[in-house]
Amino acid sequence: MKIKFVPDGVCASKGFYANGVHCGIRKNRDKRDLALIFSEVLCNAAAVYTQNKVKGAPIYITQKNLANNKAQAVIVNSGNANTCNADGEIKAQMMCDLTANSLGINADDVIVASTGVIGQVMPIEPIAQKMEELAKGLSNTGNDEAAEAILTTDTFKKEVAVRFEIDEIECHIGGMAKGSGMIHPNMATMLCFLTTDVNICGKLLQKALSEVIVDTFNMVSVDGDTSTNDMVSIMSSGLADNKKIRDENSKEYQDFKKALFIILEELSKNIAKDGEGATKLLTCSVSNASDKQTARVVAKSVITSSLFKSAMFGQDANWGRILCAIGYAEAEFAIEQVAVSLSSEFGQIQVCKNGSGVEFSEEEAAKILTANDIKIMINLGGGKESATAWGCDLTYDYVKINGDYRT
Amino acid sequence: MKIKFVPDGVCASKGFYANGVHCGIRKNRDKRDLALIFSEVLCNAAAVYTQNKVKGAPIYITQKNLANNKAQAVIVNSGNANTCNADGEIKAQMMCDLTANSLGINADDVIVASTGVIGQVMPIEPIAQKMEELAKGLSNTGNDEAAEAILTTDTFKKEVAVRFEIDEIECHIGGMAKGSGMIHPNMATMLCFLTTDVNICGKLLQKALSEVIVDTFNMVSVDGDTSTNDMVSIMSSGLADNKKIRDENSKEYQDFKKALFIILEELSKNIAKDGEGATKLLTCSVSNASDKQTARVVAKSVITSSLFKSAMFGQDANWGRILCAIGYAEAEFAIEQVAVSLSSEFGQIQVCKNGSGVEFSEEEAAKILTANDIKIMINLGGGKESATAWGCDLTYDYVKINGDYRT
Repeated sequence: MKIKFVPDGVCASKGFYANGVHCGIRKNRDKRDLALIFSEVLCNAAAVYTQNKVKGAPIYITQKNLANNKAQAVIVNSGNANTCNADGEIKAQMMCDLTANSLGINADDVIVASTGVIGQVMPIEPIAQKMEELAKGLSNTGNDEAAEAILTTDTFKKEVAVRFEIDEIECHIGGMAKGSGMIHPNMATMLCFLTTDVNICGKLLQKALSEVIVDTFNMVSVDGDTSTNDMVSIMSSGLADNKKIRDENSKEYQDFKKALFIILEELSKNIAKDGEGATKLLTCSVSNASDKQTARVVAKSVITSSLFKSAMFGQDANWGRILCAIGYAEAEFAIEQVAVSLSSEFGQIQVCKNGSGVEFSEEEAAKILTANDIKIMINLGGGKESATAWGCDLTYDYVKINGDYRT
Repeated sequence: MKIKFVPDGVCASKGFYANGVHCGIRKNRDKRDLALIFSEVLCNAAAVYTQNKVKGAPIYITQKNLANNKAQAVIVNSGNANTCNADGEIKAQMMCDLTANSLGINADDVIVASTGVIGQVMPIEPIAQKMEELAKGLSNTGNDEAAEAILTTDTFKKEVAVRFEIDEIECHIGGMAKGSGMIHPNMATMLCFLTTDVNICGKLLQKALSEVIVDTFNMVSVDGDTSTNDMVSIMSSGLADNKKIRDENSKEYQDFKKALFIILEELSKNIAKDGEGATKLLTCSVSNASDKQTARVVAKSVITSSLFKSAMFGQDANWGRILCAIGYAEAEFAIEQVAVSLSSEFGQIQVCKNGSGVEFSEEEAAKILTANDIKIMINLGGGKESATAWGCDLTYDYVKINGDYRT
């Protein structure tokens, strides 16, 4: 199956419209802070949520609204997480009501999400005042505005869309995401909203999303902190008009999953690359593991290590820290079989073999590490499974951003 | 039982001598890098080690030497971890042989440890050349020199000793430790060497050490990275001449454990306070947990959060991050019963009640957070158990130190 990247993010899928405005939850007037996605038809919908016990109020309302696997719109604000507030669920419900009224749809067909500071009362007035403008401005080219409005400390918009064929019918999946800090997904993730025009039943939509996330968003870590507001949702309008996908063993379902994987992998990389204060994308690939979970756990352990992340910022080939992080990963493997290499556009070197150091040119290593995109390849030498995790370096700016986040 | 702090660290216990010299493993000539502790009699001895699968070569040699629970000396170098080196165990054994020769004891009665860079070949010549000077210089006031020689990026020596009575006989426990980075103990910890003159059987010595560590060193985290070289050892000379402690239900054993707890708690605090780049000691106390492990897991989750640590550096009362870290702790409790307060020498405020924010004066909060010693009190409202964890803030200097650690 051919999968091609296309523009237009969440609007790439047939039947979807989007918009984003500045409503005033964020003080900065130049920054949009309220996003809307709308489908012209009622969609099958699915979502995964944070595993944090402290959950943002919007999570509870969205879970309730998606109980029937149907949705027609997404409303999201940035600047306030609406989390740990006594009136949080009332406010999240009001966001759904306002959205439904302005679109002429049912309030329980709205997916609601919030991101920003935890524990500050959510102002509903700015949203109420701007809802009509937001809805009126919906267009099939409004994906950029929506993608901008969900960002917090992110430095660039995260949008991806692909085109592919099912039954020789042209289909699409589009998505937008926000990441940056408090990024350590656990069976769910940061905010991400996906659209597709593929005709697929709600059950398989949920299954595909839940499965693909394991090797994409759940393999990203910026700072080891699992957010309270993580949410990934997908709505399928079915307007591609392919024969409805109902069989998980069908080629059509597998193709849909492949396309979804491409989208989520790309968004995952973008989230890691744009981690708070980050200067480098770190991609850790583990191969020859005895099982998939071992590969995942080891890859994630390395990209989560503060010591390793600091060394990458300093462009120091301190590979002992990679070994250390492999060693404390909660997985089973023979450390005396482990080999490690580092690579980038400037070259590749092996730094460790059979669990011990090998001689290498520090000069060459330093050159490799000047790149913005560094790959760490770990061979566990004990099987056939592999996994990849994405992270970023730990920098002065991460500390600066988070030393005074609320002002 | 009265427990009194006394000077002299590891030399506070009867029969122990110590020394520290510069041998040249570290380039900096002003910095001692080789430490020796010696007991005039063969001691009962016990130790706990890192759970990292990548273990420093000295760990294996010490485990072998302590198989009979006996030891008479400790040799430690800083500047090189002797980890992930093909000839690591040979070098660690040579360190024991050199020590034994110079002291006239058996090589298998030597505890050996190394700390510093991982994955660089360990030079044995500097140690061989300085061993005689090191041994000749042993004295019952050499504890300061030894404590200095085991430091890496630590900014101050970590020594504690206490005096207490067992059977109305004066007894002592003394200790020295190093911490700073790669600190996230897991059933073991950074380097720490303890001495005591209490007469106690090897089995109970091990039991006391293993138990006390759970609520002291294992409750410290600087950066979430569990070191490859963690080791805590204790040697008891028995020279206090109390009736040998053999019964774990005896008052004497309980008193010994209390004194050991005081020592390890104090060293734990010092390690947290001197975390790499740290400006603040963070003490998180969890109360009213349904069980001890819940209290431990929640306390440790909070002091491990990079976001919370950065906020403390910025003196920002961003309590939502505390709630977030409580929420992703792998433990069971009712989030709607959680209350959180912050305190320091400058005051105390409640920031959260019933899992939601309460109004508080940001001005007062900011003042409290200017202190160097911040307490975070979490009431889980669901039981009677409690635990305390120690950590430090995440600062520009942590990133700076670790961006270029090897030079």
